[in-house]
Amino acid sequence: MTGQADCELCRGDGGRLVLRAADWRVIRAEDPAFPAFYRVIWNAHVAEWTDLPPVQRSLCMQAVAKVETVLREALRPTKINLASLGNVVPHLHWHVIARFDWDSHFPQPVWGAPQRRVEPTAEVRLSLPLVDLDARVVAALAPLAGH
Amino acid sequence: MTGQADCELCRGDGGRLVLRAADWRVIRAEDPAFPAFYRVIWNAHVAEWTDLPPVQRSLCMQAVAKVETVLREALRPTKINLASLGNVVPHLHWHVIARFDWDSHFPQPVWGAPQRRVEPTAEVRLSLPLVDLDARVVAALAPLAGH
Repeated sequence: MTGQADCELCRGDGGRLVLRAADWRVIRAEDPAFPAFYRVIWNAHVAEWTDLPPVQRSLCMQAVAKVETVLREALRPTKINLASLGNVVPHLHWHVIARFDWDSHFPQPVWGAPQRRVEPTAEVRLSLPLVDLDARVVAALAPLAGH
Repeated sequence: MTGQADCELCRGDGGRLVLRAADWRVIRAEDPAFPAFYRVIWNAHVAEWTDLPPVQRSLCMQAVAKVETVLREALRPTKINLASLGNVVPHLHWHVIARFDWDSHFPQPVWGAPQRRVEPTAEVRLSLPLVDLDARVVAALAPLAGH
């Protein structure tokens, strides 16, 4: 693995580690406003998705699709948001976020302007506890991870 | 093709049409702040990326990868931003945006807060005219489109 000393995704997990495979890992971002916010992080330090050869690119997206599918099935969100930005941390990571029409920013992106105050908190509005959601993500991804 | 009368991406192209294939099309968003902003739009009305069967999902991402590659090679951007959000228009479309460290919002996402005023305009700072960039996108995508 290629690591860069000044890259926070090379130095640490980048969030609450849910599952680690040889080439990628899944973390949960632990964002109170968006509790069902996961990231698929490529373990090696590459900046852009197309820095990966097509086979690895596809593997990465298979992991993204698995997380998306778990979030859809478990939470029935209003929308899934996917993004690979990396302007601040140029180490390939895909945001996979379950969005709800009641969340603080909907229909704005999570990086946009807040639209409303949410009480009770977003986490308690989810249809299952985050520990169970994490477990479903692990179960769905384990075959792809070779676990 | 499944079309929805109340969906703007079913009713129209959704931007300046660059190339249309049987299953998808590429448009340029014509955003003055982000001139090299393209979208890969799935022609049929589906909301989520994982609504597509895996083969179509992969085809869609191949188109995204081709656009990303053209932008990287032609413009040498600071970063590529990819996103499938659809909170406002829940019809599958992928944003492919060349970002520059001098652009109005960098390093914020294009949906975030502006960081600076850009003069001369972003378009004249690109290393080639948009008509030539469009032509490169067409050339790169034509084989995938079966043209």
